[in-house]
Amino acid sequence: MGTTSTDPSGLPANRVEALCDGVFAIAMTVLVLNIQVPEGGDELGTRLIMIWPKLASYATSFVMLAVLWIGHHFQFNYIRRADRPLLWINILFLLAITFLPFTTAVLANYYKQRLSVFLYGSNLLFSGFCLLGHWVYATANHRLVPRELDDSVITSIRTRITIGLGVYGLAIALGFLDTRASLGVFVAMPLMYLIPSRVDRHVAGKD
Amino acid sequence: MGTTSTDPSGLPANRVEALCDGVFAIAMTVLVLNIQVPEGGDELGTRLIMIWPKLASYATSFVMLAVLWIGHHFQFNYIRRADRPLLWINILFLLAITFLPFTTAVLANYYKQRLSVFLYGSNLLFSGFCLLGHWVYATANHRLVPRELDDSVITSIRTRITIGLGVYGLAIALGFLDTRASLGVFVAMPLMYLIPSRVDRHVAGKD
Amino acid sequence: MGTTSTDPSGLPANRVEALCDGVFAIAMTVLVLNIQVPEGGDELGTRLIMIWPKLASYATSFVMLAVLWIGHHFQFNYIRRADRPLLWINILFLLAITFLPFTTAVLANYYKQRLSVFLYGSNLLFSGFCLLGHWVYATANHRLVPRELDDSVITSIRTRITIGLGVYGLAIALGFLDTRASLGVFVAMPLMYLIPSRVDRHVAGKD
Amino acid sequence: MGTTSTDPSGLPANRVEALCDGVFAIAMTVLVLNIQVPEGGDELGTRLIMIWPKLASYATSFVMLAVLWIGHHFQFNYIRRADRPLLWINILFLLAITFLPFTTAVLANYYKQRLSVFLYGSNLLFSGFCLLGHWVYATANHRLVPRELDDSVITSIRTRITIGLGVYGLAIALGFLDTRASLGVFVAMPLMYLIPSRVDRHVAGKD
Repeated sequence: MGTTSTDPSGLPANRVEALCDGVFAIAMTVLVLNIQVPEGGDELGTRLIMIWPKLASYATSFVMLAVLWIGHHFQFNYIRRADRPLLWINILFLLAITFLPFTTAVLANYYKQRLSVFLYGSNLLFSGFCLLGHWVYATANHRLVPRELDDSVITSIRTRITIGLGVYGLAIALGFLDTRASLGVFVAMPLMYLIPSRVDRHVAGKD
Repeated sequence: MGTTSTDPSGLPANRVEALCDGVFAIAMTVLVLNIQVPEGGDELGTRLIMIWPKLASYATSFVMLAVLWIGHHFQFNYIRRADRPLLWINILFLLAITFLPFTTAVLANYYKQRLSVFLYGSNLLFSGFCLLGHWVYATANHRLVPRELDDSVITSIRTRITIGLGVYGLAIALGFLDTRASLGVFVAMPLMYLIPSRVDRHVAGKD
Repeated sequence: MGTTSTDPSGLPANRVEALCDGVFAIAMTVLVLNIQVPEGGDELGTRLIMIWPKLASYATSFVMLAVLWIGHHFQFNYIRRADRPLLWINILFLLAITFLPFTTAVLANYYKQRLSVFLYGSNLLFSGFCLLGHWVYATANHRLVPRELDDSVITSIRTRITIGLGVYGLAIALGFLDTRASLGVFVAMPLMYLIPSRVDRHVAGKD
Repeated sequence: MGTTSTDPSGLPANRVEALCDGVFAIAMTVLVLNIQVPEGGDELGTRLIMIWPKLASYATSFVMLAVLWIGHHFQFNYIRRADRPLLWINILFLLAITFLPFTTAVLANYYKQRLSVFLYGSNLLFSGFCLLGHWVYATANHRLVPRELDDSVITSIRTRITIGLGVYGLAIALGFLDTRASLGVFVAMPLMYLIPSRVDRHVAGKD
């Protein structure tokens, strides 16, 4: 923080990270505000079972946000400086992130309708697309990453995001056939990200 | 963080930045809480179309907050220390920022009324005015910025904010003639900020 | 952040600051969620005038939170390490801070009733009392502040908080005579904190 | 922050801390949003007494979150780097943390029912279990903690969390006999954490 103006190439990245961490923390937490215990004559157990779509969509969206945050976190392990275009890519990304609690609420209320599954998937697809653009912009000609960063790391992160975009696209397409298949993909997707990648080996210093 | 008390000239700026980043992150995220899918007999598509003013005002305010945050971010690239008056200017600035979700909700519900357009524009104008005062205070006699900071950078940031104030003022004035013209200016305004300025060239070390 | 374990005397303070900054940022922002434009047949101007107690209590509580945050900020300019008792004093302090949006909502709805003025004042009094305890604990025998910190700075901060407690107490007492007098004190109080103190001169290196 | 890529063993921990601090700050603050002053013909005092279960569950959950946050804080005093599994343990932990405002609201509304006490206790038990797994994972073979960290500190933190899990379990079990006994344990539990431990002596450099 004390070295910002002597470094000539762009703004320090730490405040971009701070804003993003704040937005993610809030988006992850306000998801739960969508869940209300319905008042009424039934006993509590029945009421909680009635709101299972809200509970399931809360957990799914939380994990989706976590996956996107981890992706962002990995990128900023290499990106040290931010310029105006990168700021704006982040703004678009955060616009999509803050919109997810809304599309999650729509999904929870209308999970049998194609339109709500399409909206939810599109929101995720757009978020992932911003994340890809963020990395492509930052790494083109090593614009905002250290010169010594290996091309294999750059490619590995790009591939990982691209695969994610493919899965989001698949889930959206499946939603036109059967919304349940689409929801299954969304729930299963995070498991894919538990698999360690070349990037993990790189940050662990074993690559 | 470990060097605060040995530096004699004011409080460290990082906690001011932390509070501001937090307030911006929350204000940007709670904007979406204003949007509720109306219940009713219509199908989901129709309902979503019905709430387009809320969706449009959410996106517009989000981008407005982003523009103000970027302005604040650029200033703190140069401001390292904070004194009591600067803290209070920040407090006033944040008061305006936290008020924007309210005036946005008013705009979304009453976007055809002159008063709501006037309130929304005034909120933005006041925010921008605080941002200008913040910079003028910090840079007068290089009070809180490094002595070696070039006057052209000081002037460039000041000019950029002043132009923004002019556009806010124009939008407010247009609102008395036709509220749609005013809303058009608000939506179009961020495009202006995509244009790189002398400040960008400075932080990029090419100036 | 990279020097935590080599320093033997307590936990680093930066995460306590981060949690506090987060809580303050959120408390300051959710205050505005209390304000809703009433629906109804009246025109917008009339409706906005109807909610003036909410607008006034929002602005007052925002500034009160700012005053408390600035006090906390000044203390952590000198406090570098945290131990378990200091953490718990902070927890109590934050409990009072997060409660303020509730007592503010009560005040906005029942500003003519003694009980709501008493609750609001007590909330502020308790917050200020935590802040005083925080400073007294941290500075006793220079427990968590640098040994070279001058006693006059320690006394100056303590006096400033104590005066604040006196004003809160006065406002509570006045509330039993006339709630309007009490509200006047709350609104006027921040002006007192605009006056620079010995602490400001100290952090400015002129003392 | 400027030394991340030269350190070969994992991602820097500071952004994980930032996300966690953000989530905790928000969860602690949105708890109060559950409390609404009931409208109606009664006088304010009567109304406030009517909502005592909400007030009590707010304060209890706030302190519970504080206890969990302090535990997390102590762990990251020793954990410097994060790898993918640690990130995911944190995600699960935060999922439980963001869920607590919901189970708190359920408890406040249905505090006489076994199911709501069971849900609330299970939420805390799961949070504590994540915290334990977090520490066990990070310290196994000194995976993410400094090699020189003493085994007695590792054991002390582990024991402290395990005792907490036992108390949560006891409270859940008691809830099947009498929900009031269960609530009593939840309220009394934080007092246990006021007792300093070997860890405190270690961070104070006296051990």
